[in-house]
Amino acid sequence: MIVIGELINATRKKVREAVINHDKDVIESRASAQAEAGADYIDVNVGTGQGDAAEEVENMKWAINAVQKVTDKPISVDSPDTEVIRAGLEVCAEGKKHFVNSVTAESERLIPTLELVKKYDTNVVALAMGDEGIKVEPEERLEAASKIMEQVRSMDIPDETVFFDPLVMPLGTDPRNAVLTLRTGCLIFEKYPDVKLAMGLSNVSHGLPQRKLLNRVFLTLAMHSGFHAALIDPTDGEMMRTLHAAEALLGNDEFCMNFITYCRSQES
Amino acid sequence: MIVIGELINATRKKVREAVINHDKDVIESRASAQAEAGADYIDVNVGTGQGDAAEEVENMKWAINAVQKVTDKPISVDSPDTEVIRAGLEVCAEGKKHFVNSVTAESERLIPTLELVKKYDTNVVALAMGDEGIKVEPEERLEAASKIMEQVRSMDIPDETVFFDPLVMPLGTDPRNAVLTLRTGCLIFEKYPDVKLAMGLSNVSHGLPQRKLLNRVFLTLAMHSGFHAALIDPTDGEMMRTLHAAEALLGNDEFCMNFITYCRSQES
Repeated sequence: MIVIGELINATRKKVREAVINHDKDVIESRASAQAEAGADYIDVNVGTGQGDAAEEVENMKWAINAVQKVTDKPISVDSPDTEVIRAGLEVCAEGKKHFVNSVTAESERLIPTLELVKKYDTNVVALAMGDEGIKVEPEERLEAASKIMEQVRSMDIPDETVFFDPLVMPLGTDPRNAVLTLRTGCLIFEKYPDVKLAMGLSNVSHGLPQRKLLNRVFLTLAMHSGFHAALIDPTDGEMMRTLHAAEALLGNDEFCMNFITYCRSQES
Repeated sequence: MIVIGELINATRKKVREAVINHDKDVIESRASAQAEAGADYIDVNVGTGQGDAAEEVENMKWAINAVQKVTDKPISVDSPDTEVIRAGLEVCAEGKKHFVNSVTAESERLIPTLELVKKYDTNVVALAMGDEGIKVEPEERLEAASKIMEQVRSMDIPDETVFFDPLVMPLGTDPRNAVLTLRTGCLIFEKYPDVKLAMGLSNVSHGLPQRKLLNRVFLTLAMHSGFHAALIDPTDGEMMRTLHAAEALLGNDEFCMNFITYCRSQES
């Protein structure tokens, strides 16, 4: 399972303040903590909801530079704004396959974002939604995914660089929400067997008790459904133990060596 | 998910001593603790490995009577010995559907055990193995299951009273072991869509660290694969929270009310 570390996100209060005040320490410590804890990519989102577009462009460059000072993990450049993504990719270290997070089927974003994916030869998180927002039924989300894939293929971007996030709505509002997401993933994977599936977990537990537990169990279900990547907090030991346990149980960890090694590292 | 409480089993030291010494308190407290914690059935296994067959017959009656003094949950009469099962069923309260745990395709056990299932109108845990022990490949375990089902149907026992346990070998010895079990369950369920699937979890984690975590994650995978029952410790709060979380995520808990109620009950 590919782990995209989610802790550098300006929707989190500490990160928002750090971005606004250009406080490098917060960014650097979150970057190195996640890298040490087993993140494969470091997600960077500087959308503070304050300042203008030019400021966000500068903030993205600043934050990615801070991350790259302390770790050589590739970056997941996280913004809905194409110009912010472009700025981020410009400062991302060469010779690595980074992530663009994310593209959707929305007409304004689709082509400009994929042009960056193509130019910088990155992976991309593709959200299964279009101009009309997130649809309920898996078949409708598949339509949005298909629209993205049509464009991806017309631009000769390899299928396997696309990581579809089928999107999950809070379970508290509809008991089918988690299942709909897993089902959407399976539909996308059936139609496009070379794409990968990514899961942004945490929305599933919005408004419920024991959120971390729900997120862990949902991660297990996603792994069982064949998902390849997840946006999670790698410093959450219980989450990572669950991930390693699921890898072992799913047959991806010979003699459970990764699992055992991870458990031992947590004990010390 | 149907929970068969596993704590009254003479392979556990305290229970073995209680059975040998006819110490009712241990049996009663484990029975009521499991009933309160959410067990649907109370498993009773008095195989101490000591004494003769006649003694085990008496011990089974004694233990089931002790359980039934403190709870009206139905019993899972757990023994490989047909005479011990018969003795247990004789004292099980009438008017409830109990469990026989277990039958196999072994020639000596198959017919005598199913005769008891038929006579006492019980459910039965059926282990997917025959005279040659546990086979590795799912197709081979399916053969043993098919042999059992042939006999079940020839005796007009309803398919839906049969809970197949596909059996799991320790993950530490072969990384495929958990997956083979889930796959076997799916094969059995495809061929016999009215039977149910039961999981004895704990063998999967034998010899590994963090056994309870591995068992919880395996339970999640089993639930996702459509299993209907599990032999677990219902007083293990983390296990039961995981079970309720998985039920909610799998769409079986409207507005997560059972999950929320369980979490609240654990807080108080």
